[in-house]
Amino acid sequence: MKPPPPVSDGPATTQSILKIEAGREPLRVEDELAGEEPLEIRVRGKAVSVTMRTPHPDPDQRDQHDAEMAIGFLLGEGVIHDGDDILSVEPCGRPANSHGNILNVFLAPTCDFDPEKLSRHVFASSSCGLCGKASIDAVHAHFPPVFSDAQITSDTLLALPDKLRPSQATFDRTGGLHAAALFDTAGNLLVVREDIGRHNAIDKVLGHALLQGWLPLTDHALLVSGRASFEIMQKALSASVPIVAAVSAPSSLAAEFAQDSQQTLVGFLRDNRMNVYSHPERVLL
Amino acid sequence: MKPPPPVSDGPATTQSILKIEAGREPLRVEDELAGEEPLEIRVRGKAVSVTMRTPHPDPDQRDQHDAEMAIGFLLGEGVIHDGDDILSVEPCGRPANSHGNILNVFLAPTCDFDPEKLSRHVFASSSCGLCGKASIDAVHAHFPPVFSDAQITSDTLLALPDKLRPSQATFDRTGGLHAAALFDTAGNLLVVREDIGRHNAIDKVLGHALLQGWLPLTDHALLVSGRASFEIMQKALSASVPIVAAVSAPSSLAAEFAQDSQQTLVGFLRDNRMNVYSHPERVLL
Repeated sequence: MKPPPPVSDGPATTQSILKIEAGREPLRVEDELAGEEPLEIRVRGKAVSVTMRTPHPDPDQRDQHDAEMAIGFLLGEGVIHDGDDILSVEPCGRPANSHGNILNVFLAPTCDFDPEKLSRHVFASSSCGLCGKASIDAVHAHFPPVFSDAQITSDTLLALPDKLRPSQATFDRTGGLHAAALFDTAGNLLVVREDIGRHNAIDKVLGHALLQGWLPLTDHALLVSGRASFEIMQKALSASVPIVAAVSAPSSLAAEFAQDSQQTLVGFLRDNRMNVYSHPERVLL
Repeated sequence: MKPPPPVSDGPATTQSILKIEAGREPLRVEDELAGEEPLEIRVRGKAVSVTMRTPHPDPDQRDQHDAEMAIGFLLGEGVIHDGDDILSVEPCGRPANSHGNILNVFLAPTCDFDPEKLSRHVFASSSCGLCGKASIDAVHAHFPPVFSDAQITSDTLLALPDKLRPSQATFDRTGGLHAAALFDTAGNLLVVREDIGRHNAIDKVLGHALLQGWLPLTDHALLVSGRASFEIMQKALSASVPIVAAVSAPSSLAAEFAQDSQQTLVGFLRDNRMNVYSHPERVLL
């Protein structure tokens, strides 16, 4: 009963599985799984991150989404701030990169880059010790609170999840992908990206927005599947997103972060309901 | 309409929120949010990890669960292998640690520790480049495949989620926590831990098991809420867990990892149903 080796098809892999249900005969069926492959991001020749991500099945889109993810990641880390900071993003040469999982990001010479600071500043402890408040302050030293008088109607917000779903191509087949999507305040879907990692999906969306010249995103709303944590709010703040909506629960620190960062945080946005955790003045009832 | 500042209560924080539902009057209500605070782990005086985690509300249990998380993390990284490698785990001194978010792990002098290798080996590229297969091989260089003739009945597996739920104290109030639980193959619940991060919940469970002297866990099953990714299978392998069950979807690489590591991987375990992705010979129908 050893299953055949999985057949890779980009983001979804087809594999023989055993389906078991109480009171029924077990079935051997073909099933599709969400793809997961490592991606190494190199800046000025140095590997700054290796993350498991979902590659897109189409080779051209794969390269584009990978580049977006790298750019969104560097935006959230405070390394880059706009399109001028990026000269190009290129796959690394073979044979080291024979699987297409290593990207070189070429920064503008004017761009200040210290690999030692990467992923350190966000959790920095303060004179009063390491805590959530110190973590928020550390982020605010890099990214100021959002100044935006954008507003969105509650009906527009409640309708966002339904607009996301038809674009979630792989999720419907695998049930295994997170999604992030950017909307304008009229509720128009601008871009959606899927990934096995929620952070990666957000990085892809924000990297796309940077490449399109949309930053700062002060008239936009970011929708994420799953939960909202500190790190997700930090990524949104790096692009000055004033409205963040999550399909599931936010954490206490995400709500505190949103309050301090002048961000409207919406949670449990599903089934025509939602909770507003901070800055409800942006939601028109 | 500015809400009052959140009142922290350990893992759950109470806060005033605006509840909006289509066709109804908005309500301002008190809501509980899952806690999120940074935890820094120091080994031999060096910070090796800073992770957002959910502290337990009870101070004693908080210290214990934090220590478990640190130990589980170091187990998964290959730094420690059993209880003999740990002398003690102590909160760092004040004032730096005035919030109790910094832990010192004291390793036995015989324990080989190279901070440079931490979090690097798992994604190492091979001569054929960086890819999922190379990542699996890199893990297997540290953790051999599981040798276990443990078996579990399908009825026992199908009943696991119901046993987990009553122990998920904070989840029921916040909807915001992941859980991990360890069972024996008769279906007895041995330990359950909650956290906003699924990886943290697993680290806590495996750290607890190590401290209890239960390793290797060759006659056990690990249940995780949410999805199963490469990294979750790696953590399970570090403790020699032969059976991993996830409430949601596994990734393609998690399934490939499980197949190569002699682990039985079960996904979509809910509502009296499940899919078996690898080594179904351990599941008695």
